[in-house]
Amino acid sequence: MERLKQKIMQEGKVLSDTVLKVDAFLNHQVDPVLMQAIGEEFDSRFKEAGVTKILTLESSGIAPSVMAGLYMGVPVIFARKKKSLTLMDDLYSADVYSYTKQESNEISISKEYIQQEDTVLVIDDFLANGQAAWGLIHLVEQASADLAGLGIVIEKGFQDGGDELRQKGIRVESLAIIESLKQGEIQFSKEEAAV
Amino acid sequence: MERLKQKIMQEGKVLSDTVLKVDAFLNHQVDPVLMQAIGEEFDSRFKEAGVTKILTLESSGIAPSVMAGLYMGVPVIFARKKKSLTLMDDLYSADVYSYTKQESNEISISKEYIQQEDTVLVIDDFLANGQAAWGLIHLVEQASADLAGLGIVIEKGFQDGGDELRQKGIRVESLAIIESLKQGEIQFSKEEAAV
Repeated sequence: MERLKQKIMQEGKVLSDTVLKVDAFLNHQVDPVLMQAIGEEFDSRFKEAGVTKILTLESSGIAPSVMAGLYMGVPVIFARKKKSLTLMDDLYSADVYSYTKQESNEISISKEYIQQEDTVLVIDDFLANGQAAWGLIHLVEQASADLAGLGIVIEKGFQDGGDELRQKGIRVESLAIIESLKQGEIQFSKEEAAV
Repeated sequence: MERLKQKIMQEGKVLSDTVLKVDAFLNHQVDPVLMQAIGEEFDSRFKEAGVTKILTLESSGIAPSVMAGLYMGVPVIFARKKKSLTLMDDLYSADVYSYTKQESNEISISKEYIQQEDTVLVIDDFLANGQAAWGLIHLVEQASADLAGLGIVIEKGFQDGGDELRQKGIRVESLAIIESLKQGEIQFSKEEAAV
């Protein structure tokens, strides 16, 4: 997605060979117009997939997911990383380790919002080692719902998560795939560039 | 906002005299079409306020804020409840006690996203005792920015937060004000009903 890649080039900050900070438009400050374009792009890629629900993870997945939900005409569920007093019903839960935050979180959704009849699109802001993606997929599996695939805003192509998911036959649509962050330079994957 | 109140009546669950659960469309599952209408309503109420940034708190404030930001043409910043490895710059921070989660959180934003020249609209999903609202206002104060006011999706009118804020001269626009949850029944404030 050309517009997203331009934004990453302009406002992304390379903190190390593996860490890209996009707090200027996605993870802390959010650009609503870009989120709208991202939502439209996910809709166009998954239009024929029969999606009935979008599942994401708080907090950075919410903005792109709600825009995708608006275009696709389906509700969005955001999995929570902690149980709150008002989220105590029957839950589906999965463990997710975050390398960025260096902690393990149990993520949960209320059973009532994903049913066996649903076809679920999982959306997340980043795909690196795939920990969060697998956690979300496990929630879909527990609900015995169908998985339409994964919609990812930024994939770190130099980490294993995306390849492992695709090797398992899971459809992964990443709007920007980063091949390398070496020497402070953002290189996109050529494959994505052709899309 | 009539459409929001209808949704609250249809899908809100009264858990006690003080707790209203709106996980079906706002706090866990999100209705993107309703969020769009909420964003449009905040835009219409604050159109003349010269807003340059929207500030909210993860996670439930994000969806209505991003839609408001889209209508108003301004970026959204969501304050974080924990510091992550990629959020370690100079921060503005404030303490917020959550009665729902029974824990105190330090909320933070990166200094670079709110400047002295900004006019900030604070948006949140709920206003009850005002803890989160005051935390967000303190962040705006630390940045020496102007506060346009507060945009609240659901105010619990039977708790003190809203009155205290208004008494301090802060503009509070709540799209639905609940007067009572007693005996499992949702009563809206007549004042709001007239809007």
